Amino acid sequence: MSPTSPLRARSAAAKQQREQAILDAARRLGSEHSVREVTLTDIAAAVGMHKSAMLRYFETREQIFLALTAEGWREWSGAVRTELADLSDPSPGTIASTLAQSLVARPLFCDLLAQAPMNLERNVSLEAAYTFKTDVLAEVASLTTTLGQLLGISELAAIDVVSTATSMAGALWQMAAPGTGLRALYESRPELAHAVVDVEPKLTRILTALLTGMHAGRDYLDG
Amino acid sequence: MSPTSPLRARSAAAKQQREQAILDAARRLGSEHSVREVTLTDIAAAVGMHKSAMLRYFETREQIFLALTAEGWREWSGAVRTELADLSDPSPGTIASTLAQSLVARPLFCDLLAQAPMNLERNVSLEAAYTFKTDVLAEVASLTTTLGQLLGISELAAIDVVSTATSMAGALWQMAAPGTGLRALYESRPELAHAVVDVEPKLTRILTALLTGMHAGRDYLDG
Repeated sequence: MSPTSPLRARSAAAKQQREQAILDAARRLGSEHSVREVTLTDIAAAVGMHKSAMLRYFETREQIFLALTAEGWREWSGAVRTELADLSDPSPGTIASTLAQSLVARPLFCDLLAQAPMNLERNVSLEAAYTFKTDVLAEVASLTTTLGQLLGISELAAIDVVSTATSMAGALWQMAAPGTGLRALYESRPELAHAVVDVEPKLTRILTALLTGMHAGRDYLDG
Repeated sequence: MSPTSPLRARSAAAKQQREQAILDAARRLGSEHSVREVTLTDIAAAVGMHKSAMLRYFETREQIFLALTAEGWREWSGAVRTELADLSDPSPGTIASTLAQSLVARPLFCDLLAQAPMNLERNVSLEAAYTFKTDVLAEVASLTTTLGQLLGISELAAIDVVSTATSMAGALWQMAAPGTGLRALYESRPELAHAVVDVEPKLTRILTALLTGMHAGRDYLDG
């Protein structure tokens, strides 16, 4: 059977449809709960497949969420680049606020940003990690170009902005622990007031100061 | 038997000794491997106790590592405050470099800083989470006072510096993935060069820009 035969084509389309159904189920479950709570069994049940059959499409639970992380990078990078290009007054403050707002508006992506280096990339094959990393680096490069043009900062500095924005969004989202008993505990005790993390204003403040410091330029080392 | 009886005192001392032995074993294993690889079974084997007996001292594996995280905060906060007070020329650059160096010198602490909000705090009782959080907030407050005095920045800004330093140290340490197959992959492929994270210079650059921007002050919002 040649690769272009109708049967093979139908089967490739069916495979892609199955993959998409798995990703859709994982995306929905990850948005409803936190990523750490969603098991492979949950995803299999949601998509109506046996776990063993699902493993023909993805190596592990982590590869499914790593694919959603790459998808998240593509979607966020595209959207935020458009928003940045549309800024009538691009300044450290407005750029910081655009980055922070766009990340906070994507809670599943924030969750995945913290999960990826610690849990997801560690539980897939090196081939899958390679694919993921090249996908992400392409998005980082596009965003870096946009930021460099807007702020007149070096490529290295622009990469550091993207790293800080995404890593802090991931870390602060985990600390904020929205909807959990932990969050309720922090809010119920006045002595834990500083444990209550309000992600968007905090991330905006941090990125504004970072961009202001880079823009000033004097202290930004190239090493 | 009164609480001050010799028998009770001996038993309390023995309990504390056991707890210390468990923490020592977890600290050693966590330093040799990454925290995520160390199981309760590993710790039990290293300390020569049955898993069930160990659970009389700590609720879960995560409570053991959360205790080590609190210990890490106390030790790091004390050490870095001394180093900051000893700076002959406190500037954004020297303060940033002191913070970055002191964190990178403590790889287990960096690992735990990322693990705590995502995995450790979520797998202990609210009582244990409360104890941990009050311990950490006390160290954050001390360090915040030192930074505020050195830089002439507000309490809010100083808290943001501590959050950024510790969260980025945790996130970048996970991304750097020292000693793993992932790291070897990043280093072997020229197209993945930007995936190779060198934590200390990157963290120093980011904190220098952050502190410069806060010191400039103009754009640092109080909201």
